[in-house]
Amino acid sequence: MSGNTFGKSFTVTTFGESHGLALGAIVDGCPPGIELSEADLQADLDRRKPGTSRYTTQRREPDQVKILSGVFEGKTTGTPIGLLVENTDQRSKDYSNIAETFRPAHADYAYNHKYGFRDYRGGGRSSARETAMRVAAGAIAKKVLAQKGIQIRGYLSQLGPIKIEQFDWQEVHNNPFFCPDVSKVAEMEDYMTALRKEGNSVGAKISVVASGLFPGLGEPIFDRLDADLAHALMSINAVKGVEIGDGFEVVEQKGTEHRDEMTPDGFLSNHAGGVLGGISTGQDIIAHIALKPTSSMVIPGRSIDTHGNEIEVVTKGRHDPCVGIRATPIAEAMMAIVLADHWLRHRGQNADVHCSTPVIPAQATAGE
Amino acid sequence: MSGNTFGKSFTVTTFGESHGLALGAIVDGCPPGIELSEADLQADLDRRKPGTSRYTTQRREPDQVKILSGVFEGKTTGTPIGLLVENTDQRSKDYSNIAETFRPAHADYAYNHKYGFRDYRGGGRSSARETAMRVAAGAIAKKVLAQKGIQIRGYLSQLGPIKIEQFDWQEVHNNPFFCPDVSKVAEMEDYMTALRKEGNSVGAKISVVASGLFPGLGEPIFDRLDADLAHALMSINAVKGVEIGDGFEVVEQKGTEHRDEMTPDGFLSNHAGGVLGGISTGQDIIAHIALKPTSSMVIPGRSIDTHGNEIEVVTKGRHDPCVGIRATPIAEAMMAIVLADHWLRHRGQNADVHCSTPVIPAQATAGE
Amino acid sequence: MSGNTFGKSFTVTTFGESHGLALGAIVDGCPPGIELSEADLQADLDRRKPGTSRYTTQRREPDQVKILSGVFEGKTTGTPIGLLVENTDQRSKDYSNIAETFRPAHADYAYNHKYGFRDYRGGGRSSARETAMRVAAGAIAKKVLAQKGIQIRGYLSQLGPIKIEQFDWQEVHNNPFFCPDVSKVAEMEDYMTALRKEGNSVGAKISVVASGLFPGLGEPIFDRLDADLAHALMSINAVKGVEIGDGFEVVEQKGTEHRDEMTPDGFLSNHAGGVLGGISTGQDIIAHIALKPTSSMVIPGRSIDTHGNEIEVVTKGRHDPCVGIRATPIAEAMMAIVLADHWLRHRGQNADVHCSTPVIPAQATAGE
Amino acid sequence: MSGNTFGKSFTVTTFGESHGLALGAIVDGCPPGIELSEADLQADLDRRKPGTSRYTTQRREPDQVKILSGVFEGKTTGTPIGLLVENTDQRSKDYSNIAETFRPAHADYAYNHKYGFRDYRGGGRSSARETAMRVAAGAIAKKVLAQKGIQIRGYLSQLGPIKIEQFDWQEVHNNPFFCPDVSKVAEMEDYMTALRKEGNSVGAKISVVASGLFPGLGEPIFDRLDADLAHALMSINAVKGVEIGDGFEVVEQKGTEHRDEMTPDGFLSNHAGGVLGGISTGQDIIAHIALKPTSSMVIPGRSIDTHGNEIEVVTKGRHDPCVGIRATPIAEAMMAIVLADHWLRHRGQNADVHCSTPVIPAQATAGE
Repeated sequence: MSGNTFGKSFTVTTFGESHGLALGAIVDGCPPGIELSEADLQADLDRRKPGTSRYTTQRREPDQVKILSGVFEGKTTGTPIGLLVENTDQRSKDYSNIAETFRPAHADYAYNHKYGFRDYRGGGRSSARETAMRVAAGAIAKKVLAQKGIQIRGYLSQLGPIKIEQFDWQEVHNNPFFCPDVSKVAEMEDYMTALRKEGNSVGAKISVVASGLFPGLGEPIFDRLDADLAHALMSINAVKGVEIGDGFEVVEQKGTEHRDEMTPDGFLSNHAGGVLGGISTGQDIIAHIALKPTSSMVIPGRSIDTHGNEIEVVTKGRHDPCVGIRATPIAEAMMAIVLADHWLRHRGQNADVHCSTPVIPAQATAGE
Repeated sequence: MSGNTFGKSFTVTTFGESHGLALGAIVDGCPPGIELSEADLQADLDRRKPGTSRYTTQRREPDQVKILSGVFEGKTTGTPIGLLVENTDQRSKDYSNIAETFRPAHADYAYNHKYGFRDYRGGGRSSARETAMRVAAGAIAKKVLAQKGIQIRGYLSQLGPIKIEQFDWQEVHNNPFFCPDVSKVAEMEDYMTALRKEGNSVGAKISVVASGLFPGLGEPIFDRLDADLAHALMSINAVKGVEIGDGFEVVEQKGTEHRDEMTPDGFLSNHAGGVLGGISTGQDIIAHIALKPTSSMVIPGRSIDTHGNEIEVVTKGRHDPCVGIRATPIAEAMMAIVLADHWLRHRGQNADVHCSTPVIPAQATAGE
Repeated sequence: MSGNTFGKSFTVTTFGESHGLALGAIVDGCPPGIELSEADLQADLDRRKPGTSRYTTQRREPDQVKILSGVFEGKTTGTPIGLLVENTDQRSKDYSNIAETFRPAHADYAYNHKYGFRDYRGGGRSSARETAMRVAAGAIAKKVLAQKGIQIRGYLSQLGPIKIEQFDWQEVHNNPFFCPDVSKVAEMEDYMTALRKEGNSVGAKISVVASGLFPGLGEPIFDRLDADLAHALMSINAVKGVEIGDGFEVVEQKGTEHRDEMTPDGFLSNHAGGVLGGISTGQDIIAHIALKPTSSMVIPGRSIDTHGNEIEVVTKGRHDPCVGIRATPIAEAMMAIVLADHWLRHRGQNADVHCSTPVIPAQATAGE
Repeated sequence: MSGNTFGKSFTVTTFGESHGLALGAIVDGCPPGIELSEADLQADLDRRKPGTSRYTTQRREPDQVKILSGVFEGKTTGTPIGLLVENTDQRSKDYSNIAETFRPAHADYAYNHKYGFRDYRGGGRSSARETAMRVAAGAIAKKVLAQKGIQIRGYLSQLGPIKIEQFDWQEVHNNPFFCPDVSKVAEMEDYMTALRKEGNSVGAKISVVASGLFPGLGEPIFDRLDADLAHALMSINAVKGVEIGDGFEVVEQKGTEHRDEMTPDGFLSNHAGGVLGGISTGQDIIAHIALKPTSSMVIPGRSIDTHGNEIEVVTKGRHDPCVGIRATPIAEAMMAIVLADHWLRHRGQNADVHCSTPVIPAQATAGE
């Protein structure tokens, strides 16, 4: 029970259903004195917002965030920050037909058994709409990290069968896919257009990178930095896999190939993805996630109704054919929340530590 | 700080260094009245124990566990269960040469920067020896789950380049690799023998399966069952990736391929790995993890010492050339702890729930 | 940090400042299927509401609560319940004169040192206005407990020097003091009128009683029922003391006097206040709290300003001369939250327990 | 469930029954680099140890503590500290006669209903013997606080009807009662001798003081310093009341009497007990607790057995006629744990805060 809070020192608690009155969050533990305005949050919310291109859901939500507390005269006060986004484009009638049916690959059936019934409008609490509040909270976390020189950035690394080959951080902002490889954008557009015609959906892979780290962040044993990242990233709707650094490639690697050797001039590689023993090495922290194809689609599927009868389901309404496309800011937000939380935890315990060993430079991120 | 506790209702807190006096754990929240003896725990500890085949470290630890509290007249009392394993084969001198050096791909460098210094003997707290206590605690979690008819089993699905092709749960117990494919065992033996001669190490992939589930286990939003599993499994030493169900294969899947259709007679597939919206569907819960090659090896590597000078490191001592081999019981233990924790949480909130929808049968596990 | 959440299974997280845009709370972990409407919450909010008699602050806040999520078709869904109360009567100008002064016995000085600055309007986060959200959340907790037959009621047991002597639960609702002794009401009115003329304030004692309990609620060791109650009640603004059962009277009691003997027909007394070893006995749980006189008053006091200069402070604005008067519903709310939390925790661990010992009747509450 | 952990940043988890093999604790979150030895812990354990005077139980336990992890080369490493105290003087046969009876005012009846059965030997988990581990953990917390110049001291302020009148911290160590008033010691000795002859028991009041504080420690809203102290102190066996500063005296105080005025030269009084709005003012933090008379006594009492039959109970065995006598080091330990926890939490969030207001001196402690 009560699984709607993330973090120990910098905590985020969210509420809200897809078609309820509003979504909200409480960010608790933010240090005082940080300049913060609604515009800081809105920038990231706008990146996640639906309806901005024809490759995402056509639901139109302004996702206008209000800061209700915790900020005074433009600065955080150290007290909890209340956030609110009102739902405006709810069209609940779109969903009335699914009140008594379970859509295959949706949370419908599991929710019904857990709670005895469910708010079926747009998936209720299981809707990805909930991630708007994560993005808002993540924007606050990014400001906490910026004070320490840590930056979080993400990108789309694969859209269905299309993998990126070139890399330019600047390009990420220039297309609706968050794709860093300009040479693949046209291919992605064509793919998505065909997919939409087909009425089908597809998966995607997103990568997130934290740079500007120092060695020593993270806690043994269960709250390792990579374990908390895995928790945070796997909690995003539709995610089915999480990798740190080389991820599943390590299965076939030998030790001599995998180990990141060190010299006084810096690390010679970053297979570990910036984390060893659960603690940051000072190199970039790199994570990859796999997002499944959305299960809402117009191609009929076999299912059952709430009485157990066999039915055929067609999901109308307005849906993302590739939920991965809008997931980049969400993944950034979750990584930011994890790192801000660990930064505050770390400082509490280790503020007095002096290490005589020099810090060696990080190896440049693979993508850069 | 204080990252050595896992779970919310069924909690496991561990302590202990590789070469300290003892390892220990406190399991808090175990329901009363469950029959429990040291033999129940020892069985799983023996499966993880080092020195049982020539493919693992030759350190010889009996790993004899003592139950110090929480059990009375053969049954759990509902109060915390104290567990202790004394270290007997410590040979700390093997490690004196690494007191002032950092081994590449070890936690040494990160720990030193975090804490200012470190217990360098055998990796101290960062040693995989700590996982003995997880296995002991996991054995208790398995007993909690057994009361509800839930069973946890794991196996080696890939050793370096060698993937399993056939599957028989019975075979898992018949070889030192936890390999369910008897036709691959000889190949694995030859591979490991060559690897040891070469002085190198290699990665592995482990799979864990929970069966006997019911629909409705898990909590939105941050404590989804898959998110907590990702947390638990990524917290195991050397793990760099976690997948639920089809994992990274979903990136290239289309919605029609991925979705697990339902009929009154049962699910038609289990691509989701038994979890939708973070909540169990009643199908088998399937997770896969990637373990990196151990970084302790006799092939020299470039590194620095604690003063920042360039050095060459050779790790002598007794090490596992493939840490994945002994990881199967550890992965089982972590999945068991997550599910036991969620079962108790679920029961607290939802004990009164009655769902009128019939439970449909799970599809058989792919491996079976 | 992040101290704005209470509870483990039934959790309440609040935000909001006295003169910010709104107050809010997230109640997480409420079981599904409980009938709940805004009217259920409003009833208790109206009991705490300022401006209802001339013995409380003249600030006029409708304290109209909105449920933003977690309720569908009149029933709780099991997902987090978002609550919002907008601030309407803010008159921030009343407080501009205290921006650079510290009021003696207020949190001003401590907040400034903790956070470097503070939202000085009406005390900001330290204002008792925050307790409105506790009352709203407590009303939900009361509904959870009502399902189990547990009822929470409070009353004023002492106002400054005036102690109650007679007891009638019905009278509690018939006067603005929550006083169960009708014979003392006129005396209290006179006392408060004189106090207001004097420009002074006074303390009070509030008592809270839970009835309908069963034996076995509560957790050893740190989360004893009485320890969690002490935590919850001492967290209410102005509370300086908490007693369970006979409280400080036990210091002079002998064992033969204090012990509550048992017979098959029931307990013979309830000195323990319904809790032994931190666990409920099935008798009424009785707690008393001491509330200090409010420090906001028009009689000048010596203090310093934010630069450390000596000043004289007079607190204008609208204040309660006895904050204890409005504290009864707050104390009820906190006790309800603790018991609801423990009830869900208890059920998670002990749902299977069968005890062969018969439950003996509770002794009637002293007051009844 | 799982209520055996206290603290958020500096956490203490304990296990162990009165007559089990051992008691133990894990202290997690202790900063690295603090000098720590078993002797540091033993000093406080010896102060709590039974059998040291004829006014306490005659059970003889050496309470020899072992540090099993988390300390390397004489310093804390930042990893969890495992503590163990073996039980040696168990004489379980003394308790066999109470296996099927419930002692009035004991936890027996409540435990049986909670768990279905209980470890009846010496009270099992409900025994005050568990507090030995709190004292050991508290000794570590004291070392953390000493680094910041904070000191924790306690004393007996009342034994049954005998109240202290004079105060000298030095005297506290010179008598078996922790009594700061040398003129009352003989009276206490006579009282206790008579009480023992009578076969009865009596209550006591203990006071604890933290000095060397700074303004700004503590968290709104639920984790106020005083709320966490109330939680910690009420969790000690036999405690029925907690006061901060003037405690229940505030009920009859007027605002002008209670408020602690400030001048540039310091506070003029300390009625608040060093906490305002849940946050430290820099003055001494003062708490008082009421301990009930122990319920184990040889004077027969009415009760029931596990089948519900009427019986008469006489508690033989070795018991403290006044559990308050040995409670001083326990109360100190709990206050130390709360303050160490808050100090680390505070530093995590507020390490960057600069406050331009000067810190004014604290008023001397009332007792000094």
